[in-house]
Amino acid sequence: MVCLHGAGMTNAFTTSGLFGTLLRDPSTADAFSSAAFLQHAIAFEVAWTETLVSLGAVDPEDGNAAIVAMKGTVLDLDALGISSDINGLPIPELVAQLRKDLPEPQAKAIHTGTTSQDVIDTVMVQTLLGLLDTFEARLTTLVAALTELSQHTEGHLMGRTRMQAALPIPVAMRVRSWVGPLRDHQERLDGLRAQVGQVQLGGPVGLRDFPKGQGDAAATELARRLGLRMGPVWHSNRTPMLDLGHWMTLVTGSLGKLGHDIALMALQGIYDIKLDGGGASSAMPHKQNPVLAEALVTLARFVGIQQGGLAQAMVHEQERSGVAWALEWMILPAIAEATGAALNQAIRLIDQIVRIGPDIPQPEKPD
Amino acid sequence: MVCLHGAGMTNAFTTSGLFGTLLRDPSTADAFSSAAFLQHAIAFEVAWTETLVSLGAVDPEDGNAAIVAMKGTVLDLDALGISSDINGLPIPELVAQLRKDLPEPQAKAIHTGTTSQDVIDTVMVQTLLGLLDTFEARLTTLVAALTELSQHTEGHLMGRTRMQAALPIPVAMRVRSWVGPLRDHQERLDGLRAQVGQVQLGGPVGLRDFPKGQGDAAATELARRLGLRMGPVWHSNRTPMLDLGHWMTLVTGSLGKLGHDIALMALQGIYDIKLDGGGASSAMPHKQNPVLAEALVTLARFVGIQQGGLAQAMVHEQERSGVAWALEWMILPAIAEATGAALNQAIRLIDQIVRIGPDIPQPEKPD
Amino acid sequence: MVCLHGAGMTNAFTTSGLFGTLLRDPSTADAFSSAAFLQHAIAFEVAWTETLVSLGAVDPEDGNAAIVAMKGTVLDLDALGISSDINGLPIPELVAQLRKDLPEPQAKAIHTGTTSQDVIDTVMVQTLLGLLDTFEARLTTLVAALTELSQHTEGHLMGRTRMQAALPIPVAMRVRSWVGPLRDHQERLDGLRAQVGQVQLGGPVGLRDFPKGQGDAAATELARRLGLRMGPVWHSNRTPMLDLGHWMTLVTGSLGKLGHDIALMALQGIYDIKLDGGGASSAMPHKQNPVLAEALVTLARFVGIQQGGLAQAMVHEQERSGVAWALEWMILPAIAEATGAALNQAIRLIDQIVRIGPDIPQPEKPD
Amino acid sequence: MVCLHGAGMTNAFTTSGLFGTLLRDPSTADAFSSAAFLQHAIAFEVAWTETLVSLGAVDPEDGNAAIVAMKGTVLDLDALGISSDINGLPIPELVAQLRKDLPEPQAKAIHTGTTSQDVIDTVMVQTLLGLLDTFEARLTTLVAALTELSQHTEGHLMGRTRMQAALPIPVAMRVRSWVGPLRDHQERLDGLRAQVGQVQLGGPVGLRDFPKGQGDAAATELARRLGLRMGPVWHSNRTPMLDLGHWMTLVTGSLGKLGHDIALMALQGIYDIKLDGGGASSAMPHKQNPVLAEALVTLARFVGIQQGGLAQAMVHEQERSGVAWALEWMILPAIAEATGAALNQAIRLIDQIVRIGPDIPQPEKPD
Repeated sequence: MVCLHGAGMTNAFTTSGLFGTLLRDPSTADAFSSAAFLQHAIAFEVAWTETLVSLGAVDPEDGNAAIVAMKGTVLDLDALGISSDINGLPIPELVAQLRKDLPEPQAKAIHTGTTSQDVIDTVMVQTLLGLLDTFEARLTTLVAALTELSQHTEGHLMGRTRMQAALPIPVAMRVRSWVGPLRDHQERLDGLRAQVGQVQLGGPVGLRDFPKGQGDAAATELARRLGLRMGPVWHSNRTPMLDLGHWMTLVTGSLGKLGHDIALMALQGIYDIKLDGGGASSAMPHKQNPVLAEALVTLARFVGIQQGGLAQAMVHEQERSGVAWALEWMILPAIAEATGAALNQAIRLIDQIVRIGPDIPQPEKPD
Repeated sequence: MVCLHGAGMTNAFTTSGLFGTLLRDPSTADAFSSAAFLQHAIAFEVAWTETLVSLGAVDPEDGNAAIVAMKGTVLDLDALGISSDINGLPIPELVAQLRKDLPEPQAKAIHTGTTSQDVIDTVMVQTLLGLLDTFEARLTTLVAALTELSQHTEGHLMGRTRMQAALPIPVAMRVRSWVGPLRDHQERLDGLRAQVGQVQLGGPVGLRDFPKGQGDAAATELARRLGLRMGPVWHSNRTPMLDLGHWMTLVTGSLGKLGHDIALMALQGIYDIKLDGGGASSAMPHKQNPVLAEALVTLARFVGIQQGGLAQAMVHEQERSGVAWALEWMILPAIAEATGAALNQAIRLIDQIVRIGPDIPQPEKPD
Repeated sequence: MVCLHGAGMTNAFTTSGLFGTLLRDPSTADAFSSAAFLQHAIAFEVAWTETLVSLGAVDPEDGNAAIVAMKGTVLDLDALGISSDINGLPIPELVAQLRKDLPEPQAKAIHTGTTSQDVIDTVMVQTLLGLLDTFEARLTTLVAALTELSQHTEGHLMGRTRMQAALPIPVAMRVRSWVGPLRDHQERLDGLRAQVGQVQLGGPVGLRDFPKGQGDAAATELARRLGLRMGPVWHSNRTPMLDLGHWMTLVTGSLGKLGHDIALMALQGIYDIKLDGGGASSAMPHKQNPVLAEALVTLARFVGIQQGGLAQAMVHEQERSGVAWALEWMILPAIAEATGAALNQAIRLIDQIVRIGPDIPQPEKPD
Repeated sequence: MVCLHGAGMTNAFTTSGLFGTLLRDPSTADAFSSAAFLQHAIAFEVAWTETLVSLGAVDPEDGNAAIVAMKGTVLDLDALGISSDINGLPIPELVAQLRKDLPEPQAKAIHTGTTSQDVIDTVMVQTLLGLLDTFEARLTTLVAALTELSQHTEGHLMGRTRMQAALPIPVAMRVRSWVGPLRDHQERLDGLRAQVGQVQLGGPVGLRDFPKGQGDAAATELARRLGLRMGPVWHSNRTPMLDLGHWMTLVTGSLGKLGHDIALMALQGIYDIKLDGGGASSAMPHKQNPVLAEALVTLARFVGIQQGGLAQAMVHEQERSGVAWALEWMILPAIAEATGAALNQAIRLIDQIVRIGPDIPQPEKPD
């Protein structure tokens, strides 16, 4: 574990393991760790130096020496943290450490022509693209489990509208109401990746003119090396971040619906579902709480709210807003981790289903 | 004006004209008026009866008589309002009024096989699609004005990052940072329309099985008649509503950025823009307040927040949630009107620009 | 009805009567009407001129003539609306109309030394204080009804924790869980009124120095005349607005809990409550939907979200922020109307209770 | 550091030290750590056993043995985390570990009559009360620094309303506009502590009847031992949590105003403030970014949004809602940490002020 200057102890409820992983997702948290961040950041810097070499803006020998140096740098993590307190972000100090002791032509082959935002935005995109792959895998598992559940489900349960018994519906229809939207969200993923998987390269104020007159060529090359798409500078246009948040809002929202339904189905008196392995009470040993179903609703409400906060980051003044940008840093990782957790809990929850459909079969749906 | 039982006086700030139209948009409000709602609702019912006739589920003579009756019904608006207080929505009473005095076969040719949600969701979709056309027209005007502005702009202004002077940038680049995202939002409109322009037809609990065994055929025909697309029942999947809210969040967010920039550019000491026709102060005759620019930021923050609320409607329990559904009714019209207002104010604001770029030209950008 | 230039038609869902008054409250809306606003605004101006006279800053004859003129002014409402489109608010034009045709000493006896924000903030406070009286009366009715209900309730129902049957509780205890928090909110009202019932008087930039050297004396006198409390200038400190929003969030939140409970109790299979007069379905005549209970949850979620938006108005730049201030205008009336509606619906809902406690009595609580 | 099963790596942006402490506060995070949680939880259990002894419900010898055992228990942290994944919270397993190997009368002297929510809510209250002390100390420092700043400040700066130069104001008045609201928030603290510093004791379903007939006596004694106040069961009334969130919203909101003002004052062209030690840019060595001022605005927006989410927890169904309750766990620690960070950054920011008031003195305020 990367242990940094001033790293606080972790929150009992949502970041430590004390409350388990109901509301959190360690693997998503890892994707946002300092170690992961630095790995992406250095990958960016290496790709940038390679780009400068390939465009002839840097002597290949200097460039290669710089790359070797970057890959071999032993970072002083404390110094990174301390400098962030002054600079608001670790990139100036990171660049200083990467350049340390290099002769000037090699030092200048590093980072020159880019800026902190180029690095951090690209890291954020890379991180979130990686998570989309993770989330897609989980969605695939979940959709398969729900599809199988819908196919092996017989009989009817009481359809309920506005919280009142309406008419019987096939149990499978209730399950399909959960899986259908999830399939839609899956299908959007390729489009979303194309939309947001865009390199950030603008330089200090977004002019993208380094090497002089070759800015777009540089962006194209950098994007290619990082497996991203070329596109215009988006430093003050936060649409991609909102798009990512929107997709996660949809996914967690759909899972919240599933969770809310299951919690209602598990009510004594309704008995439309039987779960195995629910939560124990410290005072009532006879109870089995649908804690996973509840967690899905909590996570949906949480993510929905955060998306309203992320939207405030659209108001991004001038060429770079420290205010709006940092709001993304606070909110996007929280949205992502909640999404990862929701997918995990949904998979576990479906697996806990022992019976779906009423205990005492409903009358067949009348003609 | 349709005046209904219990219609309150309008809010001085946002629904009356006292505070002008800075934060509101009468034409968008009209699209949500009772009159417009009822027109869409009756169009739905007429198309549905036509659908039943075309599928052979209703005798053509009965169907036609029902349609004639519906088109000629003089609605008792007070009764609709009063019944909503009991039923939560006006559709049961609307159907009763449409069927009034009709012989049973004709009465049964109306609404049978659908439900309140089919009507209301389809009306909401029709209303929002109509507004997307309006918004697109405004976006086109705005994009054209900004494009022209960027083309007729010379010189440099001081690029600012994190609220600090950074390096000079072409004035046109600042303008392009406003118009670029708006063009992207424009380009998404066709996809968005296809995504959300979907008929709602599920019947009482979403089974979509009326006429018996012909549910999908009926939905296809109904969709065709209403100019919508056929798709699965989405009564408990509110993704389309969220998608609409997301697009409006992006549009108002991008306009909020534009407004925030202009308010900062208009600061004494910065002088990067000169506006004509700004707001007067009641106490300081020498002032000219950038009220349109400010309104854009207010509207962006407002819409962003509302989207976080709309997201709560994803948790839509069972076959129909009165709770979640009504949240959409409170929020979507507010988002739409704010979006309409933001587009209007942005067009006016760009028109107020007398000069863009510094008063005293900045030094040309150094090599 | 005051009909103004450009007043749009009203929204079918929440401002017209078409959807009844479930999600709205005409009497609260009236409190925010243009007519009410103007009445409060003129009362402010009259009290201000009286204040100037009483401090000797204005000749009594001029002051009285100005007051007579103000009280007799026939306002040109269209002109107010049109000027708001330019100035962002109607006060400059209102002052111009009030001063029209008056000789200079009388004209100067009006508004001089105050500013638009003094008028509008004081109007907002007066409006909200009036609403607190209304809300208190409703709370009193509701608390009395719930108290009586709890006193005339026998037997036990199944206590449920985490959506699962736990142990039997007295029915009265469930009712007390609703009324207790409402009593607390009632008890806070006097403190809240004292906290927020504060005159706004700062003048153009908040110096409060008119008449020269007598600013605090003027504020004291103005406050006395308006039935408000004297306090420091709060033009850029929006705490009172947040406090009001917080109280309404608590009230609607507590009613949302009540509504959610009742909707769950009304479930078939639970049968812990029987309501009379619930909502009809357009497709399922056998249903009786708990529409009032649902509305309470919707309104609670809505108000909670808005409070998160109102909080953004705390970031109020410099001596007056058009951005932050206008956000209050959009949100506070919406919060207030939702609160008024929630109180109304809760009173109606409690009145609909035919039976509370299980149909088939639960076993007495075991030792 | 307590290291638990499945504890993820920490988030680069907000929980690790990589981005410094601009947006986070390690000491507040510590207050929510697993170690702190468990310490409070065991203190609750010890006080409860003592309470049972003092009421004669438990034999003193058994009680004392139980207390000694509890204090000496070496917790199996992994097992706590694992059990939370099943039960949704660690209390059942914690109780099992505390009771382990004890003879039945001693085991029964532990936790009997309470429930998980009694423990967790009381821990949350204790944690937040502790933080209020910390925040008060920081507020005191900050208020003192601002008061001194206002006292040693001369001259005028240009007052700005609606982002436009209005009239000169004393520099000290701008400073007083920051410190005044903070003093108000300080003064509320005692009332807030009294309001929220309330023991939670209800037992399984909130009946508070253990020992039989002595529930209130037990709550009084438990409260006394924990330094809290006695009051009714509040398990389904989340007003105290909202009150805490509201106070933190006010504090961060007021600091957001201060930050926004300072960022605007630091603009080139305005020059109303000179800061020392601002942030460096990775690309523009000449820049000095007002990163602390920006962070204050970010934190204010973040907390405001979260309060809108916390409000959703008011809809707390039946005797205990796993959904609503867990939302508090996700949001309250985040609000608290952001508040702690904002106070820290504000103190640092005021310390960075080298000059306040314009570089070239403004003309004295005209008569």
